[in-house]
Amino acid sequence: MEIVSSVAFEMSILLFVALAGYLLASRIHQSAIVGEIILGVIIGPSVLGLITYTSFVKGIAELGAIILLFVVGLEFKMQEIFKAKYAIIALIGVIVPFIGGYLLAKLFNFNFQSAIFVGAALTATSIAITANILREMGKLQTEAAKAIIGAAVIDDILGLLALSFSSEIATGAFSISAIAWIAIKSALFFCVGILLGIYLSKLITKFDKTKISQKYTELVFIIAMMIAFFYALVAESIGLSAIVGAFLAGVSLEGIILRNGKNYREGAEYMGIIFGAIFFVSLGILVDIKAINLTIIIFMLALTIIAIITKFIGCYIPARIQGMSREDSTIIGFGMSPRGEVAMIIALLGLNMGYFQQDIYISIVLMALLTTIITPILIRNWLLKPELGPKNFKFRHND
Amino acid sequence: MEIVSSVAFEMSILLFVALAGYLLASRIHQSAIVGEIILGVIIGPSVLGLITYTSFVKGIAELGAIILLFVVGLEFKMQEIFKAKYAIIALIGVIVPFIGGYLLAKLFNFNFQSAIFVGAALTATSIAITANILREMGKLQTEAAKAIIGAAVIDDILGLLALSFSSEIATGAFSISAIAWIAIKSALFFCVGILLGIYLSKLITKFDKTKISQKYTELVFIIAMMIAFFYALVAESIGLSAIVGAFLAGVSLEGIILRNGKNYREGAEYMGIIFGAIFFVSLGILVDIKAINLTIIIFMLALTIIAIITKFIGCYIPARIQGMSREDSTIIGFGMSPRGEVAMIIALLGLNMGYFQQDIYISIVLMALLTTIITPILIRNWLLKPELGPKNFKFRHND
Repeated sequence: MEIVSSVAFEMSILLFVALAGYLLASRIHQSAIVGEIILGVIIGPSVLGLITYTSFVKGIAELGAIILLFVVGLEFKMQEIFKAKYAIIALIGVIVPFIGGYLLAKLFNFNFQSAIFVGAALTATSIAITANILREMGKLQTEAAKAIIGAAVIDDILGLLALSFSSEIATGAFSISAIAWIAIKSALFFCVGILLGIYLSKLITKFDKTKISQKYTELVFIIAMMIAFFYALVAESIGLSAIVGAFLAGVSLEGIILRNGKNYREGAEYMGIIFGAIFFVSLGILVDIKAINLTIIIFMLALTIIAIITKFIGCYIPARIQGMSREDSTIIGFGMSPRGEVAMIIALLGLNMGYFQQDIYISIVLMALLTTIITPILIRNWLLKPELGPKNFKFRHND
Repeated sequence: MEIVSSVAFEMSILLFVALAGYLLASRIHQSAIVGEIILGVIIGPSVLGLITYTSFVKGIAELGAIILLFVVGLEFKMQEIFKAKYAIIALIGVIVPFIGGYLLAKLFNFNFQSAIFVGAALTATSIAITANILREMGKLQTEAAKAIIGAAVIDDILGLLALSFSSEIATGAFSISAIAWIAIKSALFFCVGILLGIYLSKLITKFDKTKISQKYTELVFIIAMMIAFFYALVAESIGLSAIVGAFLAGVSLEGIILRNGKNYREGAEYMGIIFGAIFFVSLGILVDIKAINLTIIIFMLALTIIAIITKFIGCYIPARIQGMSREDSTIIGFGMSPRGEVAMIIALLGLNMGYFQQDIYISIVLMALLTTIITPILIRNWLLKPELGPKNFKFRHND
């Protein structure tokens, strides 16, 4: 019964560490992700060696990444997000960090492929973390918060596209026609995916009224999860990342109205809780602490500074140009700084594909952690101690 | 990105087949499990070859078995089930099929280990299937139905114990002292497990009132799942089956009262929907249809007949002796006949441990399917056409 044993053993320890990660994070007033990754490092092969990155852990972590992005996608409402104003902030807020990350990596003599991935890793803001900070501060309904959420969603999409570009460019297909081809594929995938999603949503709404859905209320949930993995599969097979597909599946399954079937959003969230937590723990397990040296530390710190500065500039300027106040623009700039799951998934993919080694992987994961830790401190200090901020700095409530 | 691809591919196809299995089952008026296994056989290596039993599929299926039994355990209420009357029906209803299965296998010249597993596979009634039939017929609140559910729950536990015994006996430790040792271990595990579960339930209820559970409402769910896998791990490490542990975890986590935390029962059910379905599909994938020959077919049919007759006798007689009517006893006898997940898991474990080959594996899986298909027909015919049943046969409503 050895085989069953290892599943039970690995799941027990992964969930135990996830739980401990939450408690640790809460104790040090950080996001749960921070605690999960730190404890993942500790139980991993480079410290305690309680668990290794077995094929089961790898499979479950990949499952987790897909479900996580599906759940993120489900939380989106398309019409609320896709505003030109936010799109411009998102776009410039993606381009500047991408260039910044790329140049920094080249400056540290990393090769072209690594530099491209470092650039891509700096693009996407972590919606979960930013939204959480704003919620904790009771500022979720302000104009700045809405801009942050809107732009963060769009830059997630742009970040995922940057990942797809990077993967293709890194394989050597770096020509104008190759880039054009990726752009066309991505655009087609998004358009067809959204349209198909609208059609599928109608189909599911109709299916839900049938007798079979009344009898088997779980079917709607199975269908939704199947669509998530199917979109992931299609994204993969046309050369995009699986998580891009899962995210799109979540975004496009918007208009489903259920009368009988189980709540698939809730079901996906429950699965996301377990496998998302395992995903973050697994990121820690993959960190080989022995690989850390002075160069990595310096690069990582530089990367973190570049991540915050480039995102700030890339969002502050377009916000100002579009007529937002200096205060709101500042909040938007800092609010867009935390990197999260997308950056970490990009690091994981690059490592798994062999484009770079532990040096870049560790730097990106720790950069994501540090931006997550630093951003709330920056926002809180600027908001709570206005005398330290720019003149007349004050958080404004929709005025 | 090949690795992610295979997860997305395997999950898509497994869920698609699970869905198709539901639709097929509904069309042929059978339990969803029947459809899932049949289509699992068809997509598996022996027919279409769309998917094989990869280590990921294996891991996910094992995960499914553990979650499935945890969910089954969660549905139990201890005090409703453990009545002496039902326990006697369950006990004799386990012993007779065990002996019947063992003798049949010996008659067909299978070796000792195989025969022990065949016996164990005949012990446990499928609660899910029986309960479903009774629910469909609107007979869930009758005395006979309560006896069936109560006895089916107890014989699940006895069946899981029979599995543990069989595993140990099959490894060669067939002596009185070895059997006594297993009995002591099992009894200890159940007692300590239940007591620990009651303590943990109180602890979780208390934890749920803390600020941290208010902030992270998902923690209670993570803790519950962690306990399920931890019990599975402990069961494994003392030589019982992982699913016995998961089941016990479900049964013992009864008294949790939640104010803040997410509903862990609901969460476990959602996970059980996805991974349970995958588990049944995977059972089909493992069937090598090319291995089927006349001997297997004859053995399988004989096994099915023995399964129904021995369960009928083993439940009818103790029901009658305890003063139940001939009609109720007949319904109980047939109602206890369907075998399900426990039989199939026993078949899977025996195959994975190399105690037997495809011949026994296929026979047990098909026997479980056939009892599931035949039992509703038997019950419906006896109930709806009383003239075909014993004299004066009529279903009685609690009178």
